[in-house]
Amino acid sequence: MNSEKIPDIIIGRLPIYLRALQRLSEKGIETTSSQELGEIVGISAAQIRKDISQFGEFGKQGTGYSIPYLIEKLRDILKVDRVWEVAIVGMGDVGHALAHYNGFANRGFHANMVFDNDPKKIGHKVGDFEVLDAASMIEKIKQHKIKVAMIAVPATSAQEVADQLVKAGVKAILNYAPISLNVPDGVHVQYIDPVTHLQRMTYYL
Amino acid sequence: MNSEKIPDIIIGRLPIYLRALQRLSEKGIETTSSQELGEIVGISAAQIRKDISQFGEFGKQGTGYSIPYLIEKLRDILKVDRVWEVAIVGMGDVGHALAHYNGFANRGFHANMVFDNDPKKIGHKVGDFEVLDAASMIEKIKQHKIKVAMIAVPATSAQEVADQLVKAGVKAILNYAPISLNVPDGVHVQYIDPVTHLQRMTYYL
Repeated sequence: MNSEKIPDIIIGRLPIYLRALQRLSEKGIETTSSQELGEIVGISAAQIRKDISQFGEFGKQGTGYSIPYLIEKLRDILKVDRVWEVAIVGMGDVGHALAHYNGFANRGFHANMVFDNDPKKIGHKVGDFEVLDAASMIEKIKQHKIKVAMIAVPATSAQEVADQLVKAGVKAILNYAPISLNVPDGVHVQYIDPVTHLQRMTYYL
Repeated sequence: MNSEKIPDIIIGRLPIYLRALQRLSEKGIETTSSQELGEIVGISAAQIRKDISQFGEFGKQGTGYSIPYLIEKLRDILKVDRVWEVAIVGMGDVGHALAHYNGFANRGFHANMVFDNDPKKIGHKVGDFEVLDAASMIEKIKQHKIKVAMIAVPATSAQEVADQLVKAGVKAILNYAPISLNVPDGVHVQYIDPVTHLQRMTYYL
C-alpha cells in the first residue's frame, strides 16, 4: 500500500464509507457488498470497489466485505483508530452546537477545550466545558499538543484565529466561517458551507 | 450542452468554483486562470479546465476566464440565478445558527420560515423569524411551494421530519442530524457532518 499516491478525492469518500459501515455495524450486520454500500451512500458499486481496492484486497468474490474488518482498515487508513483532541474556537450558536455535539464519540475525535474572547462568556459553562480566554489559546493548545481545531467565529476574525492556531501547532482546521483561509503548506483546511451543499442539489431541481 | 450526463462529482465541485469566483469578484478582480482558481480551491488546474469545459467554451487561451461571465454561467447551470425559499426545521443551536446565517444572500437562497415542535419556542422570535408550530409545517410549506429545507432536529426525529417534508413537496434536504435519511427517488439529500471533514484531514497528519 502506497497511500501517498491516493488521490484526495478518494480519501474524501472513505469517511462516507466508514460512516455507512459503522451504521450497518450498529444494526448488527456483519457483511455487506459494494452494491448495498453504494445504495446507502449514493456512489456506484464499481467506484466503491475501485476506491477500496486502492488499499489492498478487502472483499471476497461472492461473499462481499466483512464489515468489522473493513471498518478496522478504514479507521487505520484515516488514522481515526486513535482519539484526536479537538479545540473549538468561538462560542456563538455554532460553537454551542459543536460543544454539545455527540457525534464525535467512536469516530476518532474528542472535543476537549473551547475558547472565546468575550468576557461575558469566558469562565462560564457550555455543556461540559468551561469557556477559556482566547488570549490563552496558543499557550493552551501548545501545552496539550492539540493538532485539530474547529473555527466558529465571525468571518471577520477567522483568518486571525487561523493564524494563531497555526502558530500553536494545529495541522487540521475545520472552518465554519464563510471565508477562505490562507494557511501554510502542511496545514489542512476543510470548510462547512451549507450553501455549496444546497447549490449541488438545486442543479437537479 | 447536455447537462443530464454530467457526473455528480463534477456538479459537486461547481459550487466551490462559484464561491471562489464570487470572492475574487468582490475584490474587484475581473479575470482569472485555472491555475489561480486551482490554488484557491485546492483542485488541479487541469481538473478545473476539464470540469468547466463540460458546459461549453468559457476560457480563452492566454487570457483566462472572465469572472463575471463564468459566475453568470455557473449560477445558471446550478439554477441559483434565482432565489430559492428555504424552510429550517428545528430551533436548537444549529437551527439558531442557520436562522442568523448571513451567507445565503446573493447565493441563491433565502430562509423564510422556521419550525419547532417545542411549545416554549413556538411563537417566539429567532432573529427575524417567528418560530412556527411544526404541526403546521406540511400545510405551510405546500402553501408557499417551498422546495428546499434544512433539518436541524435531533437524530431521533430527523427521519419523521424528512417524511413530512417530502409529503409537503420538498425536493432538496440539507440534513444536519447525524443519521442517514431514506427519501424517495427525485428527492435529494446532502449531509453536514463535521466528522467526515475531520477524518479527511487526519489521513494526512
